[in-house]
Amino acid sequence: MASTSYTQCASRIITPTLKSSVHSGHTVRSAPPQAARALSFKTAFGKSTVPKVSQSFCNNSRALCVSAKADSGNVLPIDLRGKRAFVAGVADDQGFGWAISKALTQAGAEVILGTWVPALNIFETSLRRGKFDESRVLSDGSLMEFAKVYAMDAVYDSPEDVPESVKTNKRYAANSEFTVSEVAAKVKEDFGSIDIVVHSLANGPEVAKPLLETSRGGYLAAVSASTYSFVSMVQRFAPIMNEGGSFISLTYLAGERVVPGYGGGMSSAKAALESDTKVLAWEAGRKHNVRVNTISAGPLGSRAAKAIGFIDDMIQYSGKCSPLSQRELQAEEVGNVATFLCSPLASAVTGTCLYVDHGLHIMGLGVDSPIFADKIKN
Amino acid sequence: MASTSYTQCASRIITPTLKSSVHSGHTVRSAPPQAARALSFKTAFGKSTVPKVSQSFCNNSRALCVSAKADSGNVLPIDLRGKRAFVAGVADDQGFGWAISKALTQAGAEVILGTWVPALNIFETSLRRGKFDESRVLSDGSLMEFAKVYAMDAVYDSPEDVPESVKTNKRYAANSEFTVSEVAAKVKEDFGSIDIVVHSLANGPEVAKPLLETSRGGYLAAVSASTYSFVSMVQRFAPIMNEGGSFISLTYLAGERVVPGYGGGMSSAKAALESDTKVLAWEAGRKHNVRVNTISAGPLGSRAAKAIGFIDDMIQYSGKCSPLSQRELQAEEVGNVATFLCSPLASAVTGTCLYVDHGLHIMGLGVDSPIFADKIKN
Amino acid sequence: MASTSYTQCASRIITPTLKSSVHSGHTVRSAPPQAARALSFKTAFGKSTVPKVSQSFCNNSRALCVSAKADSGNVLPIDLRGKRAFVAGVADDQGFGWAISKALTQAGAEVILGTWVPALNIFETSLRRGKFDESRVLSDGSLMEFAKVYAMDAVYDSPEDVPESVKTNKRYAANSEFTVSEVAAKVKEDFGSIDIVVHSLANGPEVAKPLLETSRGGYLAAVSASTYSFVSMVQRFAPIMNEGGSFISLTYLAGERVVPGYGGGMSSAKAALESDTKVLAWEAGRKHNVRVNTISAGPLGSRAAKAIGFIDDMIQYSGKCSPLSQRELQAEEVGNVATFLCSPLASAVTGTCLYVDHGLHIMGLGVDSPIFADKIKN
Amino acid sequence: MASTSYTQCASRIITPTLKSSVHSGHTVRSAPPQAARALSFKTAFGKSTVPKVSQSFCNNSRALCVSAKADSGNVLPIDLRGKRAFVAGVADDQGFGWAISKALTQAGAEVILGTWVPALNIFETSLRRGKFDESRVLSDGSLMEFAKVYAMDAVYDSPEDVPESVKTNKRYAANSEFTVSEVAAKVKEDFGSIDIVVHSLANGPEVAKPLLETSRGGYLAAVSASTYSFVSMVQRFAPIMNEGGSFISLTYLAGERVVPGYGGGMSSAKAALESDTKVLAWEAGRKHNVRVNTISAGPLGSRAAKAIGFIDDMIQYSGKCSPLSQRELQAEEVGNVATFLCSPLASAVTGTCLYVDHGLHIMGLGVDSPIFADKIKN
Repeated sequence: MASTSYTQCASRIITPTLKSSVHSGHTVRSAPPQAARALSFKTAFGKSTVPKVSQSFCNNSRALCVSAKADSGNVLPIDLRGKRAFVAGVADDQGFGWAISKALTQAGAEVILGTWVPALNIFETSLRRGKFDESRVLSDGSLMEFAKVYAMDAVYDSPEDVPESVKTNKRYAANSEFTVSEVAAKVKEDFGSIDIVVHSLANGPEVAKPLLETSRGGYLAAVSASTYSFVSMVQRFAPIMNEGGSFISLTYLAGERVVPGYGGGMSSAKAALESDTKVLAWEAGRKHNVRVNTISAGPLGSRAAKAIGFIDDMIQYSGKCSPLSQRELQAEEVGNVATFLCSPLASAVTGTCLYVDHGLHIMGLGVDSPIFADKIKN
Repeated sequence: MASTSYTQCASRIITPTLKSSVHSGHTVRSAPPQAARALSFKTAFGKSTVPKVSQSFCNNSRALCVSAKADSGNVLPIDLRGKRAFVAGVADDQGFGWAISKALTQAGAEVILGTWVPALNIFETSLRRGKFDESRVLSDGSLMEFAKVYAMDAVYDSPEDVPESVKTNKRYAANSEFTVSEVAAKVKEDFGSIDIVVHSLANGPEVAKPLLETSRGGYLAAVSASTYSFVSMVQRFAPIMNEGGSFISLTYLAGERVVPGYGGGMSSAKAALESDTKVLAWEAGRKHNVRVNTISAGPLGSRAAKAIGFIDDMIQYSGKCSPLSQRELQAEEVGNVATFLCSPLASAVTGTCLYVDHGLHIMGLGVDSPIFADKIKN
Repeated sequence: MASTSYTQCASRIITPTLKSSVHSGHTVRSAPPQAARALSFKTAFGKSTVPKVSQSFCNNSRALCVSAKADSGNVLPIDLRGKRAFVAGVADDQGFGWAISKALTQAGAEVILGTWVPALNIFETSLRRGKFDESRVLSDGSLMEFAKVYAMDAVYDSPEDVPESVKTNKRYAANSEFTVSEVAAKVKEDFGSIDIVVHSLANGPEVAKPLLETSRGGYLAAVSASTYSFVSMVQRFAPIMNEGGSFISLTYLAGERVVPGYGGGMSSAKAALESDTKVLAWEAGRKHNVRVNTISAGPLGSRAAKAIGFIDDMIQYSGKCSPLSQRELQAEEVGNVATFLCSPLASAVTGTCLYVDHGLHIMGLGVDSPIFADKIKN
Repeated sequence: MASTSYTQCASRIITPTLKSSVHSGHTVRSAPPQAARALSFKTAFGKSTVPKVSQSFCNNSRALCVSAKADSGNVLPIDLRGKRAFVAGVADDQGFGWAISKALTQAGAEVILGTWVPALNIFETSLRRGKFDESRVLSDGSLMEFAKVYAMDAVYDSPEDVPESVKTNKRYAANSEFTVSEVAAKVKEDFGSIDIVVHSLANGPEVAKPLLETSRGGYLAAVSASTYSFVSMVQRFAPIMNEGGSFISLTYLAGERVVPGYGGGMSSAKAALESDTKVLAWEAGRKHNVRVNTISAGPLGSRAAKAIGFIDDMIQYSGKCSPLSQRELQAEEVGNVATFLCSPLASAVTGTCLYVDHGLHIMGLGVDSPIFADKIKN
């Protein structure tokens, strides 16, 4: 066992010189022929699935090597070490954006945020003052850090799009370069490239109104903030994305089927987003060799979601009517899936909409209807 | 922190004697307050996603700690340690079944196989003689082991279903208890319970015939072997599955849209399988608190698939027409996704069909049509 | 009005000689040149959409002409005169099969039935004794006639498929040539060709059982009787179908989404049927230039449906939860849509699944959930 | 000719001998009791499907009766007599809008147009000068008439939305009251109510650009003109719609799957339109008891479509790759389906997307790929 592990360390990681000194240089010889092949086992994007961590391991001691083996050989790692993620749409420690950031960090990625300009100040203050510390704790006890937090308003693509009234608005005045193209440019300047872009943005000013009462302004605002913002980000970030990179966004069942209460054109925006996911998967896949997917998430009791009003009802409904009805959806369940989809393990997955909703989307009827009382076991 | 890391090495790998000498038992005290919370971070099914190892890390040295941290804290583990998977439909080291078994093993699961009776002998012989050894090499250089290989024929549910002619057939005669219910009973007897069941079975005797020429016998045989076999397995394995367990199967685009060449009722069988995935996700979700998903995989140049004949064409077509067209689908890409879907990280995902096909399913036309020559960049 | 009508009669119908004698010969002159073009206005399959009936009209009287105009010129006729339809699955005057037969007759088609052998005797007796007369009344007061009623059991394709026990069964013994191929051969012999084939057959012996409790035998029986029966009919009838002919079948939402209560593999059978509709639309479209569609019908309180048990609940549920909730689905609503889909007016429609369900399929939740009480107007 | 007709009557209904002797004006009395019932045969929305003509028929003479029967009893009429339709988006005699108008007229409806302001002048001039006369010929030789043609720009909802620059634009200056709410108000004033509203509008200024190059302005313009325009029309016309009324729009496969070349956010707009169709079917169904459907039409070589550029390719592709590949899609095939969907015969159909595309949407691959040469029969 140990020797096998040895082999791994030696053959993969260490320079010849180091190798002979550390491992006495005999490991390779003892490796079975197939090991060589295994070691060149490549994932889709040409990177080994074996965590690079192990590189530092074998310098020390054989015990250390063994540990590395235990760790890398016995779980299948969603390994984003060395990857950089830009997450748009985090403004507190609730919601999917935060949970995705955390799972990405947990997976080893460096996370950069794009936070909505008007929410930035309070977010940064809260962060600084430790208000999110409890939510920042990672599985190893350390606290999630953000490499940088950019002010962003994904409703604007270029500085010339920002109306004077916004520029001078007191919540915007302290910030600059918050349009999508400027943020992308700054990310490039500051970090050089990006591997993962998360779109966790949505805004529908008239979400509480049925479509029959939604104004054109409200409808287009929903589409602009919730859908085109994603198109804009793919346009600007794909060119600075490393090969094998990945975009992800969040959608909702209401884009496909009628969910009364999710109004204001938000259902329309989500439908367009699901369609755009496919078109961008094709276009950016071919042009930049990157992937684009979306997650159709179940209702979450986050602050943002509660603003929709009907969210508590939907949580209850999901609890009564979905196949997995024992508990509420947790934001981290979405975070984990998003992280997986953005990882090399999902290298063949693009253009998809993956439901993370306890299965509610498969139901052809509402099983808690009084009509089925005593007939369908809830 | 340091102490936690140590424990991992010790408790998982090193002999008890070593362990007691190394740990000093003070780790918990040195954990920061929030760590406690992190450690009770629960996944959907009440089990910690934090590899238990990490709890004891860092007793030794800071170097170790850092490495350890990198390893456990800095990847998001698809962690199936302590889980047991039953994979039906592996008969060689090619194809999706093998790749899924390998990824499950890589993730820490113990894998049991159910192998088609007529193929069992040659499979076991090949395995014993080392013919699959190259394919068995895991990322740590060790070889994948199967906890047990059962003879299985998923076309039969109970002994009384097996016709005399089959029982006495020379390829069956040496085996017994190969029906689905018997295999499930033996798994229960031998292992007590199961966590993951993989259905990688399909057989369509008339797959080469268009539906217009497919006989009723051929059609029903395809449905029986490729679809009801899954229903039967869920019926028998769900009751011995631990809470939070998961079923997965493999489907193909032809169940949803026309793919000439995938005939003999195999398209019908896949359509039924996709539908059954939903119905079983509901029924078994409610009754047993388990999940059921399917993967719609792109064409793979495995031996089994090549029997379909048109598979090489489909691989070429996918290479020309899918968004990610630079390379062929690798079986491990499907293995990784299957393993993820069966893991606690996918605890909110049930009833879904996830495409692992380089995005081919999103295309509304074939971009390599001569009509688009020079217009669509391939 | 009369004069316009005149023009119609003149320009469209009567030979020049006749025309001048009957209508004073002045109409034609006033007809604009483009009228000639109108007369060659062709539908997809090269047949005029103008009902040929009107050809005989104007011989008589001007009053007649006017009526004729109102009738032929001012409605868009679903015109199946001269077409022959074979409807499989009518055994009483309830249900979709009967309603489709009636709408086809209403549209001018000659209707032939294929009636399940065990039900044939009582059906023919009832028909003869006038028990269905009320249901037979057409819009002109006449009674629907069937050109012929064949004994049929679509579970068998050829005489050699019929087990001895069935052949000698008292309900079968009086009949012969009831397998699909024999019935098709007899239709060819008796009528020469066919234009429309309706599949209104379904049988799931274990429909009342959840899929988790459905036996392989029950499941395959459901698929054989409800799905392959359609494949078999297309195989045998497409070759005797006139160009532009059309197949249609009936499916149900449960094939796509979970509808607890529709068990026994019937959901699987419907999923396969929807998939086969596409495959057959492709294969038979290319080979025979015919169309294949299916209708996803809402719940109907027919006798057959009530055998499913949960049907009354589903009717109530649809009444509460569908967009058009004011009334129950009527069988003739499905009959009309089926007739349209089989007519030349739908010449560009193939491979589709058309929902005739008051819109229930679009709902993402059950709006009568107690959770939404007072929030969603029912 | 007459004799043929005779024969028809004879062969189907009356024996030749009987015929001449039977007609003495007493038919009604001899009608069986159930005839009365038949005549009150109701469709979903309380209106008789029996053409009113036939009611008066049998009073006269049996000959008349026979004819009437032939006419009303022997076709199933899509009968829109007494109905009023508003068709938005007709600017020439090409395209789907015109074909739908014509089929609606053919079915007996009175048609009112809403024509895009900048195109109105040339449209009316062409109409007046007879340039469309050939296209106006109905099946009875008469010419389609429009009850009224309103200037309309569905990008504006109310007068206050129209920018000064547009108001004073020379192509708009001569017109007023062209916003959606004003047009609806005028329709109400001029006609009182409406039964059918057709949305045949789409505009995507950047349709030739891939989504990756589409500006926010271009994207939102596409959504505003092509999608919200429909929402706006339903908002304003549903309140003046008679019960049982119906909305219909046109969509395209590119909303669901990737069709390179259909860019500029038009794919997004169509996806949103398909989603809105469902939401509006629910909302307007419940509130106004009306239906909302959409048609996913295949490529048509109309003038407007050709502006998209890739249309000829798509026509060729459809010709090579769809199940019904013998001929191009005709605009009237879409016109007929639209008319059916808006008729009482489709009273149970709402929220649907019906494909009128020769089946292209069912294909999982492009069968004209060089890869399949000689393997798939085209």
